[in-house]
Amino acid sequence: AASAKPARLGLCAACHGETGMAQIPGAPNLAGQKLDYLREALKQYRDGRRNAPLMRAAIGPISDADLDELARWYSAQAPQQQGTP
Amino acid sequence: AASAKPARLGLCAACHGETGMAQIPGAPNLAGQKLDYLREALKQYRDGRRNAPLMRAAIGPISDADLDELARWYSAQAPQQQGTP
Repeated sequence: AASAKPARLGLCAACHGETGMAQIPGAPNLAGQKLDYLREALKQYRDGRRNAPLMRAAIGPISDADLDELARWYSAQAPQQQGTP
Repeated sequence: AASAKPARLGLCAACHGETGMAQIPGAPNLAGQKLDYLREALKQYRDGRRNAPLMRAAIGPISDADLDELARWYSAQAPQQQGTP
């Protein structure tokens, strides 16, 4: 279910935060992002169509199940307004 | 200023909505996204490092000023929780 924390969340949270609010410059917010978009982006990082070395290293050969679990988790997070620089 | 609507907003709004909520499957929400991330993503679509034919066609040779104006606009929009499919 989307409520339980994904096993691999820690790796993502370093840059995207556990609740999908970016923690480092350059990282996007993921909270409340569209589920189909998150899935597609993760797949493109996994197979290299999106060439972001950091993301490729972070997700590596992620399984479909883990990929789906992470996409669901972040899509289910409430987006928060934050000060835009 | 971020409050005035960007001249080229109409092109983006077709898929991303005027306030940054995705209008079509596969398009991401942009409302409240990090400004630096939006700028970088737009630049990568412009120069082809991100290979999304639809986006390349949509933004074409966008000027830095237009690119910045659009990134500021969407970053300034309040993210809205919506039913995640």
